[in-house]
Amino acid sequence: MTERLVVIGGDAAGMTAASRARRRRQPEDLEIVAFERGPYTSYSACGIPYFVGDLVSDIDELVARTPDEHRRNGIDVRTGHEVVAVDIDRRRVRVRDLSDGADLDEPFDQLVVATGAVPFRPDVPGIDTDGIFGVQTLADGVAVRRAVDDRAPERAVIVGGGYIGLEMAEALVRRGLEVSLIDRTEQPMGMALDADMGALVGRALGAVGVTLHMGERVEGFDADDGRVRAVRTPRRTLPADLVVLGTGVRPDSRLAGESGIAIGETGGIVTDARMQTSVDGVWAAGDCVETVDRVTGNRVLIPLGTHANKQGRVVGINATGGDVRFPGVIGTAASKICAYEVARSGLTEGQAAQAGIGVVAATIQATTRAGYYPGAEPITVKIVAERANGRIVGAQIVGEEGAGKRIDVLATAIWNRMHVDEVASLDLSYAPPVAPVWDPVLVAARKAADLL
Amino acid sequence: MTERLVVIGGDAAGMTAASRARRRRQPEDLEIVAFERGPYTSYSACGIPYFVGDLVSDIDELVARTPDEHRRNGIDVRTGHEVVAVDIDRRRVRVRDLSDGADLDEPFDQLVVATGAVPFRPDVPGIDTDGIFGVQTLADGVAVRRAVDDRAPERAVIVGGGYIGLEMAEALVRRGLEVSLIDRTEQPMGMALDADMGALVGRALGAVGVTLHMGERVEGFDADDGRVRAVRTPRRTLPADLVVLGTGVRPDSRLAGESGIAIGETGGIVTDARMQTSVDGVWAAGDCVETVDRVTGNRVLIPLGTHANKQGRVVGINATGGDVRFPGVIGTAASKICAYEVARSGLTEGQAAQAGIGVVAATIQATTRAGYYPGAEPITVKIVAERANGRIVGAQIVGEEGAGKRIDVLATAIWNRMHVDEVASLDLSYAPPVAPVWDPVLVAARKAADLL
Repeated sequence: MTERLVVIGGDAAGMTAASRARRRRQPEDLEIVAFERGPYTSYSACGIPYFVGDLVSDIDELVARTPDEHRRNGIDVRTGHEVVAVDIDRRRVRVRDLSDGADLDEPFDQLVVATGAVPFRPDVPGIDTDGIFGVQTLADGVAVRRAVDDRAPERAVIVGGGYIGLEMAEALVRRGLEVSLIDRTEQPMGMALDADMGALVGRALGAVGVTLHMGERVEGFDADDGRVRAVRTPRRTLPADLVVLGTGVRPDSRLAGESGIAIGETGGIVTDARMQTSVDGVWAAGDCVETVDRVTGNRVLIPLGTHANKQGRVVGINATGGDVRFPGVIGTAASKICAYEVARSGLTEGQAAQAGIGVVAATIQATTRAGYYPGAEPITVKIVAERANGRIVGAQIVGEEGAGKRIDVLATAIWNRMHVDEVASLDLSYAPPVAPVWDPVLVAARKAADLL
Repeated sequence: MTERLVVIGGDAAGMTAASRARRRRQPEDLEIVAFERGPYTSYSACGIPYFVGDLVSDIDELVARTPDEHRRNGIDVRTGHEVVAVDIDRRRVRVRDLSDGADLDEPFDQLVVATGAVPFRPDVPGIDTDGIFGVQTLADGVAVRRAVDDRAPERAVIVGGGYIGLEMAEALVRRGLEVSLIDRTEQPMGMALDADMGALVGRALGAVGVTLHMGERVEGFDADDGRVRAVRTPRRTLPADLVVLGTGVRPDSRLAGESGIAIGETGGIVTDARMQTSVDGVWAAGDCVETVDRVTGNRVLIPLGTHANKQGRVVGINATGGDVRFPGVIGTAASKICAYEVARSGLTEGQAAQAGIGVVAATIQATTRAGYYPGAEPITVKIVAERANGRIVGAQIVGEEGAGKRIDVLATAIWNRMHVDEVASLDLSYAPPVAPVWDPVLVAARKAADLL
């Protein structure tokens, strides 16, 4: 008898699960149906700033696999279809065809919940005014770019100084707009970096002309003829023809919660290491789930494409009889902001304090290549180590070309719970065009070790 | 009473030891004397190809710290002085002043042997002809560059297809010479890379016009008026106005051996993990010592500046009453050859076979950035894993800008003896300007895991 695997959500997590399942089981053995309420599948939302900034000219370039490509692979993708209810007992989903509003019930044997995340929208007057854009879906990206292309806006205000806010700020500068950025924190990337490292990013933004208004929150939006005209904070009113919200996301776990699937305190769907939810045969992956932070052991929300892809793979294998695990995360992330690559992994000093972990922190300045080699660029590396046992628990890097990916070395060290003294002894590569003889990450680790 | 620390050799290992010792002990407590037979101290021999290629215009840029700078730091550096004998029993070295040939005896309490390496010179007719250059010391680099600047050579032949040979080939192409390269191995970097990866490097060299003659050995050199005119192999006679030897080095352990200090089977000075030789209070560091390969457990020779610096630090601390260890190496190395960054760590397939370790090997092609992001360049990653237990034991990378330093992630994985399945699950950084959503090292690790 043919089994039926139903996937809710057609982006990275859901379609990776579907594709992996398809490779493991023949169509006569397993039918795979994926419901996606939007028009796109398997796309890179991370690429939206580069599409808006015109580094990428065609939105289709951000699509890794189209619905038709999935169909040719034997996955029955139904775009424009929203799953509105899950009946766990009867193993059915209720699906709404968004073209005509008709509902139909679809049975499943195995279910994959990959409903992603929904953006936070500040609950302030005027939030629904035309000209205020989120950047969550590819359709959002198309809308922002169209606004820039067609409306010739002159002034943009970005609300939120996280990765996406900063990347959008740079994109809009590139498109010739005058850009301001508002965030409640004291430095950009306040969730990802300590303030000393965030200040470096702030300086880079300033250098390309972005005006920062830090430590301020949005009180409301003013409109003219129904279109946004200004952003109000307690301290100022900023004229704006275009507003981008980069105020973060929360897991879209409503459907799962309503169906009786366990939701964690974080608001994300709870799964085990095999990515199975509290319901047998119901799996979840991507931005809608909570995951384990390997450093603190806490359950956390880290809505990133890398995890969505890895978790989707785990689901695709386990939902078809395999047995693999998703081992958790350590909070590694990277971005490129103007000339600077920004990267982090593990805990900041601030996060360590919140978690009650006593730490030492060392910060060093160096260059990406041997000092005498052309193109040696500045790099700042910060390492956070647990005072009690010397283990590296966090790292942050801000620097020019070639700086950011060095975080992966430190991420691998954090993953392996290495002592900073051993990190400083690592046999890393050296050649004048790619590193100084003491790689900056070794210098930072040595300095941290000397503080213990 | 003032103690006396004598250092033999004024480059990375010796002067790092001296500097570290100076930071730990006051001059009235410890006198530090360093003997160096050449004119330079603390220089980057790795930078010579960039000086010859005119990416670096002043040889002084390759000097990290001059003799005078060391003297100002309280180290009595005596350049132009060669230590010709060590009397272990009487705790004295015999030093020759190369300016007048006078010998004098200098006492020591602690001795640091940092005599470095000597280049192999093929034992063939004509090897001492004018116009044949080694590239071991800064003086060698000055001589090669002077020959290029002053003699206007048109054709160069490089003997040896390792890092230095290839880097010099590129440098001479940059200076407008017609360059050929001869090596006994079938592919460039035959000691560092498997042939499949070496072939990629060979292609890059061919693309910039270097003619490769692989699988050939030099039989002799022809001269005209005492100056080199051609290089002979069994298959051809290559006209040459300039010849560069990149035929490797051996540890300069003669002095130590003659003094009764233990020399290992590799020919390098034997030390313990504290870098102490077989003689109490006599330490050794740098290219003259053998070290432990952490992957195989074997004693090996890896003459690299990174190890010289780390070992020098260990010696400087231990020789002044400290207690730190050099934990060994895993054979990480990198180079930039034309457009390609080349890097490796651990064992190649070939080396694993020699060591009797059964392995699987996976090779993948990917890009350095998200495919749609401008400047996404090709990268090839090869991972070697032990068949019996799945642990990663080796990695090789060839690719364009941003490829090479990714080896450090895999080096850290090899160092930690990670299973390739866990490597594939690592939480590495992702952003379209710096990586695809599945970083190439993860893709390679996954492929290796799937072969187990």
